[in-house]
Amino acid sequence: MPRTRVTRLREYQVCDRSALDALLDETRVGHIGFTADEDPDGYPVVIPTAIARDADVILVHGSTGSRWMRTVAKGAPACLAVTALDGVMVARSAFESSFHYRSAVIFGSFERLEGDAKARALDVLTDKLIPGRRDEIRPPSKKELSKTMVLALQIEKWSLKISDGWPSDGADDLAGSAWAGVVPLVERAGVPIAAPDLRSDIPVPQSVSALALR
Amino acid sequence: MPRTRVTRLREYQVCDRSALDALLDETRVGHIGFTADEDPDGYPVVIPTAIARDADVILVHGSTGSRWMRTVAKGAPACLAVTALDGVMVARSAFESSFHYRSAVIFGSFERLEGDAKARALDVLTDKLIPGRRDEIRPPSKKELSKTMVLALQIEKWSLKISDGWPSDGADDLAGSAWAGVVPLVERAGVPIAAPDLRSDIPVPQSVSALALR
Repeated sequence: MPRTRVTRLREYQVCDRSALDALLDETRVGHIGFTADEDPDGYPVVIPTAIARDADVILVHGSTGSRWMRTVAKGAPACLAVTALDGVMVARSAFESSFHYRSAVIFGSFERLEGDAKARALDVLTDKLIPGRRDEIRPPSKKELSKTMVLALQIEKWSLKISDGWPSDGADDLAGSAWAGVVPLVERAGVPIAAPDLRSDIPVPQSVSALALR
Repeated sequence: MPRTRVTRLREYQVCDRSALDALLDETRVGHIGFTADEDPDGYPVVIPTAIARDADVILVHGSTGSRWMRTVAKGAPACLAVTALDGVMVARSAFESSFHYRSAVIFGSFERLEGDAKARALDVLTDKLIPGRRDEIRPPSKKELSKTMVLALQIEKWSLKISDGWPSDGADDLAGSAWAGVVPLVERAGVPIAAPDLRSDIPVPQSVSALALR
């Protein structure tokens, strides 16, 4: 059984579900771990993929031809890591230097969604990745839906670690002259760049402007 | 045997080692996948950790008390994913929308470093994470070294996928009025924040200013 109790740095463990949801909702990509089954022994594989939370499940999607999705869709044990790097923590020694981070690990098995549940899940994914975009574009076609696989992972067995404190240097280092503090790291969106084949009369839509401002 | 040939979206596969090195050198955190061995069946686990490349190996470090490091140090098969999210690719449909990304997956087994190799590896890690910092602080103590575990993974079996093109919308969507393009995503460092216990006569050092400018 996967363990979700943090055994080291126990003070970093956060059991507040709303802190988990905040991390899941603001992070675009998670890393899924599973055991490749093409070989009798198997071996671990980690794949990055877009994530969106829908209440108590995490949704991922991809092509029906995707090898990793087909493997994970069989319901084998999987692990999803969702990580935000919030800053570089600069201590007075290399040893105490670290990061500000939020790190969630969710264990479970993915379940394949079909029909209306799948169509709805794709809307949730689009709303997460480009909020407001669905109002500006046509809905997915039947052909597109049939080419897309959607998997859902229940948020049941999870752990969350948050490091957001100050360096804990010892007395000798405190008495010295080295600097200590934090350099925050933030993901910023730049100015939208139109595709070369975009007609010049089509302005940047609201969803894209909002993404750039986020 | 882990497969490193990309089977879908083959046009995204990049076999240029310098492109891999560029991704590894600019990315602070990777995700390591392995099989937990505390249970007869095992289950996949994914853990985020700081990475630094030293020529043909990738270095990671942590506490000698870290459960995941002790598991991985046994030399079991592991997988390291290193991912950069470079932009949101906004197509004229949800189906064709995607990300600009660089995604490396490296397979192999970690080897534990000791003695001079370990001390040198820690310097490489510090130089990667806070370039120039080593000149401003004391070297690691013997006690600190003994509390730290360093693992190395050879860059031998790897794959790299890069998505950096434009949306490939179909003729019907091209004739429509939806926007298409890319919103670049960049990680930015903010203004350094001094620790509350920092003496007011200690200025922000060069390494920290440079980190914030990067």
